Amino acid sequence: MKENPIGVFDSGVGGLTVLREITRQLPGENTIYLGDTARVPYGIKSRETVVRYSIEVARFLTKLDIKLLVVACNTASAYALPELKKRLRVPVIGVIEPGARAALRATRTRRIGIIGTQGTIRSNSYVDEINRLSGDETKEVAERGEKHFDRYFEIKTGKMVIFTKACPLFVPLAEEGWTSNDVARLTVEHYLKGLNDEKIDTLVLGCTHYPILKETIASVMGKGVALIDSAESTAIEVKRVLNEKGIGNDTGSPAAHRFFVTDSPERFIQVGRRFFGEGIKDAELAELEAP
Amino acid sequence: MKENPIGVFDSGVGGLTVLREITRQLPGENTIYLGDTARVPYGIKSRETVVRYSIEVARFLTKLDIKLLVVACNTASAYALPELKKRLRVPVIGVIEPGARAALRATRTRRIGIIGTQGTIRSNSYVDEINRLSGDETKEVAERGEKHFDRYFEIKTGKMVIFTKACPLFVPLAEEGWTSNDVARLTVEHYLKGLNDEKIDTLVLGCTHYPILKETIASVMGKGVALIDSAESTAIEVKRVLNEKGIGNDTGSPAAHRFFVTDSPERFIQVGRRFFGEGIKDAELAELEAP
Repeated sequence: MKENPIGVFDSGVGGLTVLREITRQLPGENTIYLGDTARVPYGIKSRETVVRYSIEVARFLTKLDIKLLVVACNTASAYALPELKKRLRVPVIGVIEPGARAALRATRTRRIGIIGTQGTIRSNSYVDEINRLSGDETKEVAERGEKHFDRYFEIKTGKMVIFTKACPLFVPLAEEGWTSNDVARLTVEHYLKGLNDEKIDTLVLGCTHYPILKETIASVMGKGVALIDSAESTAIEVKRVLNEKGIGNDTGSPAAHRFFVTDSPERFIQVGRRFFGEGIKDAELAELEAP
Repeated sequence: MKENPIGVFDSGVGGLTVLREITRQLPGENTIYLGDTARVPYGIKSRETVVRYSIEVARFLTKLDIKLLVVACNTASAYALPELKKRLRVPVIGVIEPGARAALRATRTRRIGIIGTQGTIRSNSYVDEINRLSGDETKEVAERGEKHFDRYFEIKTGKMVIFTKACPLFVPLAEEGWTSNDVARLTVEHYLKGLNDEKIDTLVLGCTHYPILKETIASVMGKGVALIDSAESTAIEVKRVLNEKGIGNDTGSPAAHRFFVTDSPERFIQVGRRFFGEGIKDAELAELEAP
């Protein structure tokens, strides 16, 4: 069991930022990563579709005897985590709870921003998780901003104010490698102006692609705002669960990392290296079965 | 047969620009549109995957007794047209041949630009089609541009010079409705600078999303460049084939337009109205079968 791999999945390459952090914190662990590149992105798709895709991916990975599943995709975590936990015998860890926990630790002013895909923002999962962790509840929700692209939500809970904003262009920008040019900077400014004006002190990067844009986001938000990237806190949670269950790999044998994709490997390897580094030598084609 | 609908499909909403032109030129025709929104976009995916998806969609539409199929997606036309023609009994019309034909009619200087998704550009379909129509062939291919994002191809044929360029951010920009703001303008400038410097006189908008960005593209390219939008020429081709086969709808009964999607209809209706207008009242969920 200890040598069994950790399964990590995402709709595409974004989850590689989480995998990178897991391999950094847990260098002895074998891993299997699956990017559902034939159906990427999940962020614009409905709950039903994302849940169905997540179950198909999880079924594929459990057949490869994973000892733990990391849902390294915010949209899939937001929509499919309860269903996956119900169906799987191994522990299932999403990225939302670790991210929410880290945001609560970071904030001093209790004014938190959450950015993510349309699916993640619409699901309200981060707000629900923050409420659950702080024993709080949502009191009031209001829409702010004037134009289509600067619209965001203000959510007052008993203890804090949370601002949420979908940023649909961040994923294609990150995939195109436009992470710090003028287009990236303007796009970040347009999307985040409202949240910046609200004087938040903590911003959750609620999509595994967004750390790629971290420097530009940081320069737009300014020094006073802590950026929460759930990769690190998710890896800590993985470590904690492995220890708790006594299934960490302490055999000392060199770790192996396998990569699977549902579309052809070529583009995954090319784009994936921007996210994971040169460690991706090859990727295998996974044939998923419909439920 | 005459009253049977024309089937039109695309990976998402882009093909609605073609449907709009078909209903304008052929107001008496019943139509069925399918947007494969659960798996959109096709433009970044491999030939194998796009062919498989196209066959599944075509099978769904032929069960609804379409009399003709329009592949209103450049990527699917580029990759799947031969396979669809082989499998279907009804006429199949893609968007590449009509677009190539229109470009040949428009150019005076024989310097043509082609822009599209990564799949369409990689497939070289427009170049092959231009060669076929003009009885020409490719003599020399060279890569131009310096940085990652301004790289494009120069293809010399016997009779002309063709420049091709993938513009991956145009689709997400069009879907976000950022069609003429500063981000759209800068993105268009970055992608098209090389082609503009090459003094082309004709630019093929080789993706059904791109007409939404037409004004911005026109203002960057300047007045001397004709923009070819294959929607119009595809609709003319549909008309020609219906007449040739004698299957145009001349019954005079009011035309019906049905819309199907593979993901939940909500987002399709909302975004689709930017492409087709308020005529989209509703969309039905299509369950595709794997081959």
